[in-house]
Amino acid sequence: MKDKVVLAFSGGLDTSYCAIYLNKELNLEVYSAIVNTGGFSEEELQAIENKAYSLGVSKHVSLDQTQYYYDKCIRYMIFGNVLRNNTYPLSVSAERMFQALAIVQYAKEVGAKYIAHGSTGAGNDQVRFDLVFQILAPEIQIITPIRDKKLSREEEIAYLQSHGVVANWEKAKYSINQGIWGTSVGGKETLTSHLPLPEEAYPSQLKRTDSQEIEITFEKGEPVALNGKLLGSVAVIQELAKTASEYAIGRDIHIGDTIIGIKGRVGFEAPASLITIKAHHALEKHTLTKWQMYWKEQLGNWYGMLLHEGQYLEPVMRNVETFLEDTQKNVSGKVKVKLMPYRFEIQGIESPHDLMSAKFGSYGEMNNAWTGEDVKGFTKIIGNQMKIYYQVNNSQ
Amino acid sequence: MKDKVVLAFSGGLDTSYCAIYLNKELNLEVYSAIVNTGGFSEEELQAIENKAYSLGVSKHVSLDQTQYYYDKCIRYMIFGNVLRNNTYPLSVSAERMFQALAIVQYAKEVGAKYIAHGSTGAGNDQVRFDLVFQILAPEIQIITPIRDKKLSREEEIAYLQSHGVVANWEKAKYSINQGIWGTSVGGKETLTSHLPLPEEAYPSQLKRTDSQEIEITFEKGEPVALNGKLLGSVAVIQELAKTASEYAIGRDIHIGDTIIGIKGRVGFEAPASLITIKAHHALEKHTLTKWQMYWKEQLGNWYGMLLHEGQYLEPVMRNVETFLEDTQKNVSGKVKVKLMPYRFEIQGIESPHDLMSAKFGSYGEMNNAWTGEDVKGFTKIIGNQMKIYYQVNNSQ
Amino acid sequence: MKDKVVLAFSGGLDTSYCAIYLNKELNLEVYSAIVNTGGFSEEELQAIENKAYSLGVSKHVSLDQTQYYYDKCIRYMIFGNVLRNNTYPLSVSAERMFQALAIVQYAKEVGAKYIAHGSTGAGNDQVRFDLVFQILAPEIQIITPIRDKKLSREEEIAYLQSHGVVANWEKAKYSINQGIWGTSVGGKETLTSHLPLPEEAYPSQLKRTDSQEIEITFEKGEPVALNGKLLGSVAVIQELAKTASEYAIGRDIHIGDTIIGIKGRVGFEAPASLITIKAHHALEKHTLTKWQMYWKEQLGNWYGMLLHEGQYLEPVMRNVETFLEDTQKNVSGKVKVKLMPYRFEIQGIESPHDLMSAKFGSYGEMNNAWTGEDVKGFTKIIGNQMKIYYQVNNSQ
Amino acid sequence: MKDKVVLAFSGGLDTSYCAIYLNKELNLEVYSAIVNTGGFSEEELQAIENKAYSLGVSKHVSLDQTQYYYDKCIRYMIFGNVLRNNTYPLSVSAERMFQALAIVQYAKEVGAKYIAHGSTGAGNDQVRFDLVFQILAPEIQIITPIRDKKLSREEEIAYLQSHGVVANWEKAKYSINQGIWGTSVGGKETLTSHLPLPEEAYPSQLKRTDSQEIEITFEKGEPVALNGKLLGSVAVIQELAKTASEYAIGRDIHIGDTIIGIKGRVGFEAPASLITIKAHHALEKHTLTKWQMYWKEQLGNWYGMLLHEGQYLEPVMRNVETFLEDTQKNVSGKVKVKLMPYRFEIQGIESPHDLMSAKFGSYGEMNNAWTGEDVKGFTKIIGNQMKIYYQVNNSQ
Repeated sequence: MKDKVVLAFSGGLDTSYCAIYLNKELNLEVYSAIVNTGGFSEEELQAIENKAYSLGVSKHVSLDQTQYYYDKCIRYMIFGNVLRNNTYPLSVSAERMFQALAIVQYAKEVGAKYIAHGSTGAGNDQVRFDLVFQILAPEIQIITPIRDKKLSREEEIAYLQSHGVVANWEKAKYSINQGIWGTSVGGKETLTSHLPLPEEAYPSQLKRTDSQEIEITFEKGEPVALNGKLLGSVAVIQELAKTASEYAIGRDIHIGDTIIGIKGRVGFEAPASLITIKAHHALEKHTLTKWQMYWKEQLGNWYGMLLHEGQYLEPVMRNVETFLEDTQKNVSGKVKVKLMPYRFEIQGIESPHDLMSAKFGSYGEMNNAWTGEDVKGFTKIIGNQMKIYYQVNNSQ
Repeated sequence: MKDKVVLAFSGGLDTSYCAIYLNKELNLEVYSAIVNTGGFSEEELQAIENKAYSLGVSKHVSLDQTQYYYDKCIRYMIFGNVLRNNTYPLSVSAERMFQALAIVQYAKEVGAKYIAHGSTGAGNDQVRFDLVFQILAPEIQIITPIRDKKLSREEEIAYLQSHGVVANWEKAKYSINQGIWGTSVGGKETLTSHLPLPEEAYPSQLKRTDSQEIEITFEKGEPVALNGKLLGSVAVIQELAKTASEYAIGRDIHIGDTIIGIKGRVGFEAPASLITIKAHHALEKHTLTKWQMYWKEQLGNWYGMLLHEGQYLEPVMRNVETFLEDTQKNVSGKVKVKLMPYRFEIQGIESPHDLMSAKFGSYGEMNNAWTGEDVKGFTKIIGNQMKIYYQVNNSQ
Repeated sequence: MKDKVVLAFSGGLDTSYCAIYLNKELNLEVYSAIVNTGGFSEEELQAIENKAYSLGVSKHVSLDQTQYYYDKCIRYMIFGNVLRNNTYPLSVSAERMFQALAIVQYAKEVGAKYIAHGSTGAGNDQVRFDLVFQILAPEIQIITPIRDKKLSREEEIAYLQSHGVVANWEKAKYSINQGIWGTSVGGKETLTSHLPLPEEAYPSQLKRTDSQEIEITFEKGEPVALNGKLLGSVAVIQELAKTASEYAIGRDIHIGDTIIGIKGRVGFEAPASLITIKAHHALEKHTLTKWQMYWKEQLGNWYGMLLHEGQYLEPVMRNVETFLEDTQKNVSGKVKVKLMPYRFEIQGIESPHDLMSAKFGSYGEMNNAWTGEDVKGFTKIIGNQMKIYYQVNNSQ
Repeated sequence: MKDKVVLAFSGGLDTSYCAIYLNKELNLEVYSAIVNTGGFSEEELQAIENKAYSLGVSKHVSLDQTQYYYDKCIRYMIFGNVLRNNTYPLSVSAERMFQALAIVQYAKEVGAKYIAHGSTGAGNDQVRFDLVFQILAPEIQIITPIRDKKLSREEEIAYLQSHGVVANWEKAKYSINQGIWGTSVGGKETLTSHLPLPEEAYPSQLKRTDSQEIEITFEKGEPVALNGKLLGSVAVIQELAKTASEYAIGRDIHIGDTIIGIKGRVGFEAPASLITIKAHHALEKHTLTKWQMYWKEQLGNWYGMLLHEGQYLEPVMRNVETFLEDTQKNVSGKVKVKLMPYRFEIQGIESPHDLMSAKFGSYGEMNNAWTGEDVKGFTKIIGNQMKIYYQVNNSQ
């Protein structure tokens, strides 16, 4: 009996090559699997399945991880308002982890001896995949033909043709990676430091020129309703993406540090994640204390950094998640957002936990909760150490 | 001979009241002073001076602190990309400190026994003023008639009338505070949590519907040229504000923690500071290492927090400034920015210090600087601790 | 019917004065209460009760909060290895909070209109008490006769004598504050910067000159057994204090920032807390990952700072506690400690969660888990950004 | 003409093997170099030189880097009070960096094509050496025979004998690494988690049983005099080590995270660094503000972490050094320390910059700088946000 290999399969050139190679050259029984984290339609998944079988795999599965990905990661990115470098929702990097987690789980289920993926030796994804596989299944060996054989596209195409696989492998002008939390866009401009992506590089083109106001309801930090309709968080995000992408909202370019130390630049279109995070953040500004905001920001940033770098399994990540969730007890309420072509505005919030309540004094208005004398005392004491410092150190 | 008081004078109702009160009731010789941190034109300053003398002050001065404010504070806010809660450039809070610093310096020069300011007991500014005065001149007493006597506008107006001062004291619908680093806007909407400011509340209305590309040149972190024209940093900021405000760029609402513990909401219009900071940040993403960015963010946020809370004189602020300046050695280059109605986009950068150089490998492309084998070794070692952790803790 | 006041009563001069004053001058019904956080014996509590009734209070209670204080605070200080300035276990400051919490709870139960405490205007405790009372019972008014009337000891003694209260009010040479988490010692030396406390200032004198090895068992971060005997955490701490104080272990002097901005210096003797924390920390070094240690240290320090400053009720404290607790899942095992005159040594640990397992490679020894080639790859990738940085910035 | 190789040479088995191997097998001209960072006497250096020439090297040099190491690193570790895990002065890890820096500099000077070191594939040092060499001299190739050939001691000895090199290569019971900043001690006990090192494992044995008081003078954070005698910092540290080691002070065991992810345990004896850091820290507690201490701790810890992990060349390290130095302006004064067998006590400090000055109010004593009313106002305002929080969130 042949040994089994689970192949993380996307239907692209690299993983098509792998499907043939693992079978023909390594004599393995190929189980191909595609993990859906919200970026594929039923039709696309069916087409990928057809392709897999046409390449002769023994079995193909589509593993839907969208809800799991939301439960185990997206909600924490919302709690933590996670934007790398204050810009980039972790659209691609986070979902790679959940693809890897589903693959390794499946490999254990089918008793595979090997896991294969189509990563090259040039990017972040190889690290993300390898880390998860090594940590959770040290007994399973990893095979990465493209990385190891340093194959060119031409060589891969020739090999496939020699095995009777003929397809249109022409490279798209812009490489697109789509998931529930956003779409990344790479192209010749993102390989430079000075050029923006052209309008047409973005998958969603402007379709509406009006404006509209929407309302997102949060419950303990999670988006649960859109315009008053209870949908569940995954559906809120998907609905939001659909509506906002018609306004071409949520485009930007991220420049960041890759896991392997070089700088990388990538365009993205992530209307739902940006709107959700900004709305959530606005609600937090009203409902959390200063120091809660302070520490959430630090831990949220750290969470994003480690997640980006493939270290989702580092135990501190669970601790940070616990912290973030604990801060969300009162982050409930409604946020109004106005959508306009290419941009959106947070209009305001309503929450029973709003700390900016007129009952306790409005900023800049006289009030009954404290007096000018109280503030004088406060200022005197808060200035004490500085006052002493200046007297000690200037009088010499 | 009468004792001298230096009065921080704006020409508004509160400080007009103080000018009379200090003279008539407290029998002091009033030296009025207005500190310009970039928000006043020559004409406005002249009008304020006329008003001061009409109120019978002994002497009036305009203290121009714009360049000093830039040198001692704004440049550090740029170095630190300082935005409170990732939103608000410290338009008003920072300049209050420099107004106070100039006032206390002037009071020492003229040998004043008192300093007076028109703050009420309800806001942040009283703390900022008192702190600076107490720390740098503990020998000078502070007088705050409005705060101490808890006067209503009507009482103040009546008092002024009784001393022959008649003017139009009608309150503007929106209170505006203008300085080089931005304009704050308060109104009835900002006293609620749910209402945005209406279009007309903002001082700068949309005038242009085209787009234009501009280029900012940074030298060691400071903006020094606009569109290739060497202007000096203050002029770059002023020019940028003029151009970008025609596009109504830079509006937003900040919800934050006041020094006195309540939440405050304030609108602002700060095109120059937002564009400068975002352009500077983009340049840093290309020229600094990951850990430089990491620590800059932490210290920059702290700097903003203490500055906002009136603690500019805390010794750690000087240490943070030294740190921030030290990180800017290579933050030189050009940033292209596209201005459009209500928004702007960072297009890209050019810098001799750009770490994203194709020489060292482009992200996602094969290269010669390292191999897939190197990354495999890296991944193995970087995953070591997690691998051990999972083996130790799952095998029980 | 008279209004009720709950008086935080210690039996000392200040609170004895208050007991009479509240009754005689303010005509209130005095409910005195002493909160025991582990520093008082039954006999001492009885003596204080006798004293209270001799001063004419209507009712006196002893509120034992030792276990509650452990559950709600000490365990988190252990989890967080909390030592202010890396030196001082929060012996006194933490327990003040729990005294205040018990007092306010009791005041609500008896329907008191007032709470009184004997703090002067010179220290931290007034802030700690007032904060808790104001936050949890804004409807109850606070009375602080000693602070408000700025009384000298002589005046208080004279007043008490005039009401027939005669006692020995002579001030002890060293002021001692004892609780389960340590004893603070103040005296004339601690008012200077240069003098150490003399041997005799410390309550526990050296009684043994041998050495002995003890073993503390931790379960999820909490000390549960001593020398193999399951005692519960409070008893472990008390037993440890008894044993170690015979060796005069755990003395030091803390110099820190008071809440009111001045520097304060205080001696302490805290053998149980120091040994527990150091033993716990050693166990963590073996069972937690690097980044868990890193974030624990940051949040633990913050917890200690806010606790010290009376901000136990700040909501972020609950979030930090949740974080700390979550990190303790695997912090179970035994720690051996050697006690010697004036000092102790952590000998080593045993834990099923020990990450330093020979199975995974011993430091400095060849092993099978990775190769020199892996480390070379690791080093190459980890050095990538620095290598690029030096090439970009030195070649100009 | 043969190509040149610079060999980092210690005279031990591994580097002796390398000396022969590089010459005989790789046909290289061997330049051996030993870097002294304060751990070697003249006699020891001479003996090593003799050994090198006896192994047939073309040239041998001793590079004295003690002062340079102090100037570029130790002083910052003092400024930052750097102790890994609050325990371990970076005795060995820091000096490895300076050995590597001197070696790469020397290799450039002599025009070497290769650098060789004797590291195995099992420890931290290989990473430290490789990182420095790769970053500063990417054009020079690195040779590591012991790592690459995975040789056992027996194989090395046999090889040396076959080339006529006969010596006593018996392994010492405890491996000792000595430098100016401390001595590390490894042995069979440190390979376990539960055993302490025995008394005899430590190089310095107890010689005195009396006590003595010494005084260290700091100038802007640096130790400059001992007992009033101006010596320069390096000499203060060396003198201190000599005196304190007679008391067997400064021993402990460190458990930490190695660069390669496993836990490592190492004993050390570092009296001078521990006393210097604790004395310096005490002086800082008196002369710095709370927030200066806070940020110093964070940045100092980070500095220690990156230094330990071989990342001394990361640009952020220079920024951190600049920060730390800037905080030391007022850290001048004298610290008295009492030395006793196995332990020391900080007695107190004297400094013109002492913020704990009786002039400004002594802790717990009534004073004139502020009143109880001021503190009441302070407490009211500081409690504002929490008060609002509890009212908003409990009343529902």
